[in-house]
Amino acid sequence: MKGTKVIRLKEEVQLNNPVFLVGLPGVGHVGKLVAEHLIEELDAEKIIEIYSHHFPPQVLVDENSEIDMVNNEMYVCKTEKHDILALIGDHQSSSTEGHYKLCTLYLDIAREFGVQRIYTLGGFPTGQLTYSEEVLGAVNNPEMIEELKEYGVNFKENEPGGGIVGASGLMLGLSKFRNIDAACLMGLTSGYLVDPKSAQSLLKVICKIFDVEIDEGPLEERAKEMEKIVARLKEVEQQQQGIPEASVRDEDLRYIG
Amino acid sequence: MKGTKVIRLKEEVQLNNPVFLVGLPGVGHVGKLVAEHLIEELDAEKIIEIYSHHFPPQVLVDENSEIDMVNNEMYVCKTEKHDILALIGDHQSSSTEGHYKLCTLYLDIAREFGVQRIYTLGGFPTGQLTYSEEVLGAVNNPEMIEELKEYGVNFKENEPGGGIVGASGLMLGLSKFRNIDAACLMGLTSGYLVDPKSAQSLLKVICKIFDVEIDEGPLEERAKEMEKIVARLKEVEQQQQGIPEASVRDEDLRYIG
Amino acid sequence: MKGTKVIRLKEEVQLNNPVFLVGLPGVGHVGKLVAEHLIEELDAEKIIEIYSHHFPPQVLVDENSEIDMVNNEMYVCKTEKHDILALIGDHQSSSTEGHYKLCTLYLDIAREFGVQRIYTLGGFPTGQLTYSEEVLGAVNNPEMIEELKEYGVNFKENEPGGGIVGASGLMLGLSKFRNIDAACLMGLTSGYLVDPKSAQSLLKVICKIFDVEIDEGPLEERAKEMEKIVARLKEVEQQQQGIPEASVRDEDLRYIG
Amino acid sequence: MKGTKVIRLKEEVQLNNPVFLVGLPGVGHVGKLVAEHLIEELDAEKIIEIYSHHFPPQVLVDENSEIDMVNNEMYVCKTEKHDILALIGDHQSSSTEGHYKLCTLYLDIAREFGVQRIYTLGGFPTGQLTYSEEVLGAVNNPEMIEELKEYGVNFKENEPGGGIVGASGLMLGLSKFRNIDAACLMGLTSGYLVDPKSAQSLLKVICKIFDVEIDEGPLEERAKEMEKIVARLKEVEQQQQGIPEASVRDEDLRYIG
Repeated sequence: MKGTKVIRLKEEVQLNNPVFLVGLPGVGHVGKLVAEHLIEELDAEKIIEIYSHHFPPQVLVDENSEIDMVNNEMYVCKTEKHDILALIGDHQSSSTEGHYKLCTLYLDIAREFGVQRIYTLGGFPTGQLTYSEEVLGAVNNPEMIEELKEYGVNFKENEPGGGIVGASGLMLGLSKFRNIDAACLMGLTSGYLVDPKSAQSLLKVICKIFDVEIDEGPLEERAKEMEKIVARLKEVEQQQQGIPEASVRDEDLRYIG
Repeated sequence: MKGTKVIRLKEEVQLNNPVFLVGLPGVGHVGKLVAEHLIEELDAEKIIEIYSHHFPPQVLVDENSEIDMVNNEMYVCKTEKHDILALIGDHQSSSTEGHYKLCTLYLDIAREFGVQRIYTLGGFPTGQLTYSEEVLGAVNNPEMIEELKEYGVNFKENEPGGGIVGASGLMLGLSKFRNIDAACLMGLTSGYLVDPKSAQSLLKVICKIFDVEIDEGPLEERAKEMEKIVARLKEVEQQQQGIPEASVRDEDLRYIG
Repeated sequence: MKGTKVIRLKEEVQLNNPVFLVGLPGVGHVGKLVAEHLIEELDAEKIIEIYSHHFPPQVLVDENSEIDMVNNEMYVCKTEKHDILALIGDHQSSSTEGHYKLCTLYLDIAREFGVQRIYTLGGFPTGQLTYSEEVLGAVNNPEMIEELKEYGVNFKENEPGGGIVGASGLMLGLSKFRNIDAACLMGLTSGYLVDPKSAQSLLKVICKIFDVEIDEGPLEERAKEMEKIVARLKEVEQQQQGIPEASVRDEDLRYIG
Repeated sequence: MKGTKVIRLKEEVQLNNPVFLVGLPGVGHVGKLVAEHLIEELDAEKIIEIYSHHFPPQVLVDENSEIDMVNNEMYVCKTEKHDILALIGDHQSSSTEGHYKLCTLYLDIAREFGVQRIYTLGGFPTGQLTYSEEVLGAVNNPEMIEELKEYGVNFKENEPGGGIVGASGLMLGLSKFRNIDAACLMGLTSGYLVDPKSAQSLLKVICKIFDVEIDEGPLEERAKEMEKIVARLKEVEQQQQGIPEASVRDEDLRYIG
């Protein structure tokens, strides 16, 4: 694909009963937090890096002052039931066309590994700082619904009302054309802040689906820090009726983000 | 066309005295409401789905929590006088170039069916919450004007003053190059809200043009709900001189939209 | 050029000592007003229409309710000294790339007619409502300066400080590569309003350059209407120190624009 | 490269121990100021001009009222230790894709000259008007860090936190694929104003790296003018707690910029 480079870090990868898991940045960074946590806890192996003109023209700086170009990456997490092909990254495409092209590329790679089921992870914005453990689902094939309900996923008519924007939605749409079952799983979240607590709820569902046990410790810690900030925000809200975005201090967000 | 996929749901469609009707989202969603209502009431058959990189990278969620990719669709409504090829959709192109490309594609399909007359439906923004039954017209061939006046369409010099933006206008311009007569019919509407009442006025004109009778019931109901909201807005307006956009509560709009 | 259509309304046009005059919309619409006025008063003949995906996806509605696609047009104005090839239009390109592509196309056409001199017309924004008769110039070849000074054009170091944006500037830059002399002539204008008075000043210079006499009547009339509005704006300014853009009522601008 | 033109002003340029220095506009224009100052003081020779559809459609006007198209330019500064290939310009790409394409082009040219080391210059925004002499670094190869520390460059974990946007960052990322060592050197600066004082600090480091002596006079003068403005801004800040962007008068900025 023109303007996009796929770097394979390992030759001849064979996946066993593969499932594709997509955790890119989005509402509350819920999907990203869950996918990154899984990769960490399951000692996943990075097998692919994807660079593209459709990502922002930017590099990130790591703890050693070394830069990394903005990219998306695929990892393999081996579990008893499935080999999970996990897609993470710091950015989604910055153009409309790029969203379509990159999602098509991701599906091509997933098909190459024989993926027959896709889960995209995201957040569902409620506009409220009250915590809810709910995980909402949407599918590209209604036959998946009963199974997912058993794992604790809720389904609501026409929700999210505004549709699902970006890779989380588009992957479902594009894989429908290829007859690959795909579901988007969304942790409920305020939509104002990075939300590790919502990520914990979503992680619980994911663990049931994949039949794995994952230490929630790190998410738990981040969630606790976040709770303090939310408590402060709620105080402000009580006084002011409405959430003043500007009142979230930069250092707080940097700490959590 | 690169990045665009046309899915034909039915082979060898033959249309009798075909007319092309375009009802995409726009000012007050007037055109969309009318076209969707016609399709519903005339038991139209969907024959084509169009997917494109030029639509927003997004899926919509239906009442069964099943997603659908953003697309545009063509239906056939059979009436005594005409077979109506109706184009509807939830979005127009999100890029300038996409507008031109998609409208050209739509015209190619229309020509393939032998269409010799095009009506694009839209809203004409008045900036006022006062209701008017007027339907305004613009044409790509002045010879159409007398005929359309008989159906109750008004014509005013240089109106709309800002031109007609998007598919409703562009289809007229592009079909002029192909010598296909085309008119844009616009229901007068505030421009602030989805307007089923204006859609009713436009529907009346359309029924005369196509010589059909259509039950206005569903539009009527939605119009009544809307009237209540407009009444509330007018109260606010009286107090504040001007319409505060933010005062329209989200749940109201979701209910109507 | 892909996505762009050039319609030639007349075959085998031969121009005598041709000069290319560019009057597209811009600051105060000064350049557009002058070029349109010239075309009107010199009974110019339209020879070319240019349609492009780079223009906004929009049609304009004329006094007969007939639509016209947004385009740019070329006219020939015959004078004793020169045949003037004049470019006008309601819009410039809506994309960066389109600006470069369309200006290159315009230069290709100009070269085809043997054009050896280009004048682009525009406005120079002063940010002040005080009228000044000054016309400022910039060139792509300093040898033009002395000649233009004789016609009443002023030159100031590094002015306009922010450069010249859009076709008026780009035509100078691109024609420099082809060794075609080009100057941008700018009437001083507030930058807040359509400015027929500044257009009059610029027209005077143009008449000297082309050695023609043009009736300024229509511009004069529009200038008078504008003066009334400016007077009102100045009152507001005195009270408020600074020009409140919103205080220009819509109907005023529509009247003038 | 389509839509981009590389003009070589000199044939068969051979560079001795070449280093590539990138000083394009960015935060505080620190990188641009340093690179332009070096070019001036080292009597550099311009060897390449790059024009592109990816730059804004605009021309700049010089002291003789002659226009120049927006471009990027490469100079050669000959020093005892190195021949410095310096890239400067008034603008970076105005599109995401253009950033990638132009940076790739710049690297192609650098490779052609045998460049094995790249320094990109920029500013690091602190959000504070307090002056700091610090120069921060980021690298695409951690082996460079020790050497750069000796020249006075500081390195901090994950800083800048928001990554490095534009050519300064992208050049590091893209050259990593080609195994060319590259560092981004950033003068600390408020981020609100053109900052010749920060440029002086960065210049000191550059002089050590290249083992040259450069007269700081002109930067010093501009820095002094700037200090007066900063002093004024600080007064305002003390009164208002926060920097009111609008309070920087236009003529001040034009004077310095």
